[in-house]
Amino acid sequence: MIIEPGELLSKIDSPADLRKLSEDQLLQVCQELRQFIIDNVSIYGGHFGASLGVVEMTVALHYVFNTPYDQLVWDVGHQAYGHKILTGRRDVFHTNRKLNGISGFPKRKESEYDAFGVGHSSTSISAALGMAVASQIKKEFDRHHIAVIGDGSMTAGMAFEALNHGGASDADLLVVLNDNCMSIDPNVGALKEYLTDITTSRTYNKVRDELWNILGKISKFGPNAQQIASKVESGIKATLLKQSNLFESLKFRYFGPIDGHDVNHLASVLQDLKKIPGPKILHCVTVKGKGFALAEKEQTKWHAPGLFDKLTGEIYKVHHTTPQPPKYQDVFGHTLLEMAEQNPKIMGVTPAMPSGSSMNIMMAAMPDRAIDVGIAEQHAVTFSAGLATQGMVPFCNIYSSFMQRGYDQVVHDVCLQNLHVVFTLDRAGFAGADGQTHHGSYDIAYMRCLPNMVVSSPMNEQELRNLMFTASQDGMGPFTIRYPRGEGVMPEWRTPLELIEVGKGRTIQEGEEVAVLTIGHIGNYVVDVCKNMKLDGLRPGHYDMRFCKPLDEQLLHHIFQTYDKVVTVEDGCLQGGFGSAILEFMADHGYNAQVKRLGIPDMIIEHGSQMELHRLCGFDPEGIERTVRELMGVTVRV
Amino acid sequence: MIIEPGELLSKIDSPADLRKLSEDQLLQVCQELRQFIIDNVSIYGGHFGASLGVVEMTVALHYVFNTPYDQLVWDVGHQAYGHKILTGRRDVFHTNRKLNGISGFPKRKESEYDAFGVGHSSTSISAALGMAVASQIKKEFDRHHIAVIGDGSMTAGMAFEALNHGGASDADLLVVLNDNCMSIDPNVGALKEYLTDITTSRTYNKVRDELWNILGKISKFGPNAQQIASKVESGIKATLLKQSNLFESLKFRYFGPIDGHDVNHLASVLQDLKKIPGPKILHCVTVKGKGFALAEKEQTKWHAPGLFDKLTGEIYKVHHTTPQPPKYQDVFGHTLLEMAEQNPKIMGVTPAMPSGSSMNIMMAAMPDRAIDVGIAEQHAVTFSAGLATQGMVPFCNIYSSFMQRGYDQVVHDVCLQNLHVVFTLDRAGFAGADGQTHHGSYDIAYMRCLPNMVVSSPMNEQELRNLMFTASQDGMGPFTIRYPRGEGVMPEWRTPLELIEVGKGRTIQEGEEVAVLTIGHIGNYVVDVCKNMKLDGLRPGHYDMRFCKPLDEQLLHHIFQTYDKVVTVEDGCLQGGFGSAILEFMADHGYNAQVKRLGIPDMIIEHGSQMELHRLCGFDPEGIERTVRELMGVTVRV
Repeated sequence: MIIEPGELLSKIDSPADLRKLSEDQLLQVCQELRQFIIDNVSIYGGHFGASLGVVEMTVALHYVFNTPYDQLVWDVGHQAYGHKILTGRRDVFHTNRKLNGISGFPKRKESEYDAFGVGHSSTSISAALGMAVASQIKKEFDRHHIAVIGDGSMTAGMAFEALNHGGASDADLLVVLNDNCMSIDPNVGALKEYLTDITTSRTYNKVRDELWNILGKISKFGPNAQQIASKVESGIKATLLKQSNLFESLKFRYFGPIDGHDVNHLASVLQDLKKIPGPKILHCVTVKGKGFALAEKEQTKWHAPGLFDKLTGEIYKVHHTTPQPPKYQDVFGHTLLEMAEQNPKIMGVTPAMPSGSSMNIMMAAMPDRAIDVGIAEQHAVTFSAGLATQGMVPFCNIYSSFMQRGYDQVVHDVCLQNLHVVFTLDRAGFAGADGQTHHGSYDIAYMRCLPNMVVSSPMNEQELRNLMFTASQDGMGPFTIRYPRGEGVMPEWRTPLELIEVGKGRTIQEGEEVAVLTIGHIGNYVVDVCKNMKLDGLRPGHYDMRFCKPLDEQLLHHIFQTYDKVVTVEDGCLQGGFGSAILEFMADHGYNAQVKRLGIPDMIIEHGSQMELHRLCGFDPEGIERTVRELMGVTVRV
Repeated sequence: MIIEPGELLSKIDSPADLRKLSEDQLLQVCQELRQFIIDNVSIYGGHFGASLGVVEMTVALHYVFNTPYDQLVWDVGHQAYGHKILTGRRDVFHTNRKLNGISGFPKRKESEYDAFGVGHSSTSISAALGMAVASQIKKEFDRHHIAVIGDGSMTAGMAFEALNHGGASDADLLVVLNDNCMSIDPNVGALKEYLTDITTSRTYNKVRDELWNILGKISKFGPNAQQIASKVESGIKATLLKQSNLFESLKFRYFGPIDGHDVNHLASVLQDLKKIPGPKILHCVTVKGKGFALAEKEQTKWHAPGLFDKLTGEIYKVHHTTPQPPKYQDVFGHTLLEMAEQNPKIMGVTPAMPSGSSMNIMMAAMPDRAIDVGIAEQHAVTFSAGLATQGMVPFCNIYSSFMQRGYDQVVHDVCLQNLHVVFTLDRAGFAGADGQTHHGSYDIAYMRCLPNMVVSSPMNEQELRNLMFTASQDGMGPFTIRYPRGEGVMPEWRTPLELIEVGKGRTIQEGEEVAVLTIGHIGNYVVDVCKNMKLDGLRPGHYDMRFCKPLDEQLLHHIFQTYDKVVTVEDGCLQGGFGSAILEFMADHGYNAQVKRLGIPDMIIEHGSQMELHRLCGFDPEGIERTVRELMGVTVRV
């Protein structure tokens, strides 16, 4: 089904076409753009609320600035659908987030209008500042550099680092603060409260009230006092608002707050700002989901709602007649609460992912013990370390690819001190449609090199529950449990909590000729492979190692004494990963065996469904079977 | 030589002893403590200026708060010598930073007074907030939590993340801002300028000036106008200062600025703050190096001056009669400038380490093209990525262990986009006396798993120069060059710049029986080993692989076709490191060989000289020779 763009939008093949329109036509462009996004996302899926919230901003920015010469960096990029549609990707927009289609995020390879690739939050000011400084050195004094960043992204430390550097520079940098009070979940923290304060003029009002209070007391100075005070007030207001502004404190010129949905006013303000040199910030107040009533109302639900009926707002759900396996996320969320009810030491920490991680289950039941710290992975880790020093057992849940941002804190604050912090790494392996920026490919490699760290991965829901239970026991240290996005395999997943011996693997089946060693959910593929091969009378061994570190040395001795051909399977990078850990064991113990490692190869893997990407990398069930059969010297069945 | 503490200090075995003294005696304690630090550091070495700057703060904090029940977290920890001396470590203080001696940083294992181990900057607020939240949950309402953090550390993003979370909480947290305008080098950025503004009341003054300006114009309102204005001014001053404060914006109650060298006033203010619940910040202005005139004057030089004459201030230098090899740091600094003079694309980026990295050489010569971005590794990396998008070639110099803090940015902003950023990782391998927090142990493992990344390490000065030159060439992508702290081996190091083929190793000597594969400076040990073994007629092969990634496959085929015993040597972690890369090559190409990997084992390695630590890990020259001889079956010579 092809979505027809509106009359004006159909003629905009690039921002140059947009800039040919009169200001009077911008409102209609916004309406058409918004409708096109609604039409597409309802049918083809994707992120929704964020892009609706910046329709006017997107149109105004491309209308006023000379993109792509002027450089526009979208923070995170959830909100850049309108940008993509206006910059030559309207007709391929339906391929968004699909294998070989366009990316859900801005991407340099995809378009010259995508000045910087994004996905993780809070990179935009740093990147745009780098571009601005380069322009200074290259004497491109007519070139503008714009970072569009949400108030949620502004809570991450690197945004502050960039403000600290940028404010002290004379680079031509415009930061557009898209203030909608939201991350994916509602934004939290002091900065959010501050932005609300200045948006509602509370800061200024407090000073004014104080002023009037004093003036009331000095009415003895005569009838002119109130008049004088009024003059004083209006006179110092501008200065006061400037001096009391947090961004002005950081030496950015501050403008706003303005209505981010008035496209003509936005265009006019941006036009003015073009003439003002140096670092500056424009504070725009917007509504996430703007123009789609339900999305305005339930902003988290409509962040990325899946397919829906654009008229009724019904979000389509697949109906199953039999019980389905739950998402690992929900198993995590319910199990954490279940354990926390029994164990008063357990706490939950999430950096702005309550709903994505299902930490919201515990947050609802125990608001004191499950905490959203904002988009702040670094702080989340060291805050957890602080909790652990006091005997609490924090479960710090971070998406695998976002854990990269707290890496130093894992090393320095947790591992070196051998503190008992449990890292549950969600969305390990391929994230799917979110693509390259969100794949959790490197965690096994970067975690298993750290002293004191346990690295584990469950093959199913019961294993996740038992690993969590094990990790929560007294006497443990740093403990990583990685699991993928999406469903497990056990409809009846509420199994009794049982302890697992740390470093003990499981024998799924003893076999002949070839041993297949797996880690995590991907082991279920091998179960299927073994069933399939059994039909041909073939019986490889299958071992779910459970732990990348410490390895089950007893089991490995058995394996290498029994087999001389081994396949390792992991949904992580091959360099330094699980397979490499097995090679290290072999070398250290003098075993020779033919080892074929399956996993993510040394290249950037883009977006697609998880299974499509596994196939691409050769570790889908078919690929695994092919590898095992090749080692056995048995031709693959047709 | 034993340093005698002063009369009062000699009786302080714990803060409880300090708290027995009268307020009148605190000044003397400060004098004695300062003298004891000067006496010790001048003879035994260590960090100097930072601890001198917080003598009064240290005494006041332990005097007022009930440590260790009240929890005191020192940020970074350079400044915690006074704290160590007052908390039971006076008599072992001369072992500071020596093998098996006390650590140069607070460390939980060392003392219950060290509430949190530190070394890297900006962790203190997060950790103390974690402790404070744990106290709330445990209903320890009488317990105080204090983070002492410098204005330099405050520029790192994670400090801001912690303020954002803490300000919105009601945790009992006191942040003591030690404002001395310094990191190791002078602090930079907008926050520093802001702190100067409020310290000198510039912010308030601007508003007041505006007020008077207006009042001048309204003098027509009669003789009372000035009088009214004066009342208004004094009345709103307090409110205004509160509302206009950056920390108040983040919902911390702000107190100060106060003189951080007035111990009695400090004690009295801290006493008052004990009674104020919730998050609060005390802004103390101090002088780094306070009480030692030369250190006050040249603060970077006296950050960690080495041994010196405490009376004359002469810093001792070893005098050599022959030319000595330079530090790798200086080779980096001079070579970068030399290349930048020829190549206008080259830029330098350092996160607050101009002098430590020798980036200051280029900064002095080309201030526009070599930039200190503050303690901000995350921003440093993405800022460099932004520069690279514009065709600049940034050399982003970050200490190996600090690179951990910019890891996500390396993955997400540089590698995924295949941008041409050169990472020169200084202090790779063991940092020496700085110890566990500063060792660069994991970089090979965490870098070589990333697509598009080249990972290299020079064996000597010429190699460093040539790798830098190679990395600067058009068409390169992400490129890591790791090198150790300290001297190389070539007194005549200004060799002509020559290109190296990426992924090409060097044959140092062909040999028999055993091949030794090395990466980086540590290869020089093997040169010595080979010389030594030659005396016994033994000739192992020695190959300087230069690149961990990509590997020199041609050379490796030759090696595995020639030898069936291989030793790998690296000053990095064994899990997933260089040796593992060699094992992966073997497995992928079906080679069987006996491989012994030497490197940093899976444990925390503490402080000591580099050679002491290499010996501990078995890859000092003697350890390497022993391993090679064992593989050869030739008893070690006595």
